Amino acid sequence: MAGGVPGEPLGEFERVRRFFAPLSGPGGLDLLDDAAIVDCRAGQRLVVTADAIVAGVHYLPNDPPEFVARKLLRVNLSDLAAMGAQPLHYLLTTALPTALGSDWVAEFARGLAEDQRRFGIDLLGGDSVATSGPAVLSLTAIGEVAAGMEIRRSGARAGDLVWVSGTIGDAFLGLALLRGAYQQLAPEYRARLIGRFHIPDPRVDLGRRLAGIAHAMIDVSDGLIADLAHLCETSCVAAAVELALLPLSPAARIIVDGEPGVRTGLAVGGDDYELLFTAPAASTKAIDDLSSVLGLPITRIGKIESGTGVRLVDADGRTISVDEPGYRHF
Amino acid sequence: MAGGVPGEPLGEFERVRRFFAPLSGPGGLDLLDDAAIVDCRAGQRLVVTADAIVAGVHYLPNDPPEFVARKLLRVNLSDLAAMGAQPLHYLLTTALPTALGSDWVAEFARGLAEDQRRFGIDLLGGDSVATSGPAVLSLTAIGEVAAGMEIRRSGARAGDLVWVSGTIGDAFLGLALLRGAYQQLAPEYRARLIGRFHIPDPRVDLGRRLAGIAHAMIDVSDGLIADLAHLCETSCVAAAVELALLPLSPAARIIVDGEPGVRTGLAVGGDDYELLFTAPAASTKAIDDLSSVLGLPITRIGKIESGTGVRLVDADGRTISVDEPGYRHF
Repeated sequence: MAGGVPGEPLGEFERVRRFFAPLSGPGGLDLLDDAAIVDCRAGQRLVVTADAIVAGVHYLPNDPPEFVARKLLRVNLSDLAAMGAQPLHYLLTTALPTALGSDWVAEFARGLAEDQRRFGIDLLGGDSVATSGPAVLSLTAIGEVAAGMEIRRSGARAGDLVWVSGTIGDAFLGLALLRGAYQQLAPEYRARLIGRFHIPDPRVDLGRRLAGIAHAMIDVSDGLIADLAHLCETSCVAAAVELALLPLSPAARIIVDGEPGVRTGLAVGGDDYELLFTAPAASTKAIDDLSSVLGLPITRIGKIESGTGVRLVDADGRTISVDEPGYRHF
Repeated sequence: MAGGVPGEPLGEFERVRRFFAPLSGPGGLDLLDDAAIVDCRAGQRLVVTADAIVAGVHYLPNDPPEFVARKLLRVNLSDLAAMGAQPLHYLLTTALPTALGSDWVAEFARGLAEDQRRFGIDLLGGDSVATSGPAVLSLTAIGEVAAGMEIRRSGARAGDLVWVSGTIGDAFLGLALLRGAYQQLAPEYRARLIGRFHIPDPRVDLGRRLAGIAHAMIDVSDGLIADLAHLCETSCVAAAVELALLPLSPAARIIVDGEPGVRTGLAVGGDDYELLFTAPAASTKAIDDLSSVLGLPITRIGKIESGTGVRLVDADGRTISVDEPGYRHF
């Protein structure tokens, strides 16, 4: 939190001292220095990523600050997971409306503290400034991966199978619920879907263990189809996704059973933060074993082909034409 | 620029591709991946820092975007310099009003490109999002320093001399000029002071070369007195600064000659991005030699004492009482 800029109210220093300094690890130098120190272990590379979120765009202004903090941290950890990296540290800059007050910041920091413990990471530094607009929160996450073991988007090859972890579409449905849809859904299912929207589960363990197995990997943030399209474009290949194979949670299945057209929406909805990867068919047993060890579904949903683009297919491999509103061909 | 979040206009992807991907280095993986790779050299540690700036708070909304980019980058490089680190890479998140348009972004990226070349650094990644409020720009800078050679704020000892690089107060006066003050000042002096406000000169070479010489160091961003107070607090010492020794540029000297009370304003004004450090008297020759080699003034302005706080003194060591508006005792 070094290098403040003139014009900041003194309160920013106090905020850092009170709420953020307790989150710092040894390399963070208690957030008292101009910068922080990161030691690199022999044979390891560091992996870095940064994402920003804006109140009213990426989260709802009334969302509990603790959830906002945890989502901000977790979307970045998900990016590290998609490279096969182990998270270590993070830096945080907050631009907050002065109206937010210390209670909001205290709860926000509490959310960070909880997830720091869970993921074994610490805060290295950052900055705290004021804005007259909506809050803008930016986080840089730093992880490590054994040199040469990082998993890239660009390694997919024709013939690879396409896999995805967990279930798809829950966060998309959670947001729809928050906006008033599916009022008839039972409370326990509602809570589950909204929870998936508020606090994603970055698949850190899975990511690390896929080193040497996955040819290419990405995390699903923009939507399964869009992110698979990113992966395919970077790898110069195409993909076919079998719509019926999309892994759905019990709650999502209830909604899709009532309204089958929703299924394609789940494939494009985004915010899943599951890992989407490709691997040769010969790795199927290794992947199934990983799924068992981690207690996490990993589902084969399609295959990589030569060409460009991503298409949805039925069980016989026939392209499904989709004309649902909001769906774009990639 | 990986891990975009749903709700972003597609334009953000295009912006990244067009304006920011050309700035990426080998570790940035063309900004096509979920995260970027940083290799660590044996015997080196990484040093990381993050600062955010907000339109209308830290820069004027009409400032040329190229200047905004360069200032954002340079205030972070100044933090690395203050640890004695060599800058290597940076990550950038931008939250921009959609009204800003591509021209602004293109000019902003041009400023980054220019300073990347100058400082030998490259872009690793980040994020690009939209905000309904003022622009918020956040940058994380990564540098390296030989293990054990990093310079901390906490190393000052009673008896050390206090030194500062360059000249103090120019940026403060530059901002005052932009706000209409000192209209009688000659144009060449005006341009120089305003230039120092718009584009600071992080003292990267000096910072690196002070390893092994400086006991403690900080960069002057909040103001010379405030930052010296931070250094003293962290080091558990006090300092006396001889007001008459403050190094002033020719332009600042003209203003101070006309209005002597301004001198204390320069000591608290901030935004200098000079290096402020302490060193034992025995290092005086080494520091003078460095000054000659770099062609950069390095001026002794005071000394470290036991106790707490920072006081301004006259040539005889008597405390100067300051009652100028805007001045606070630290």
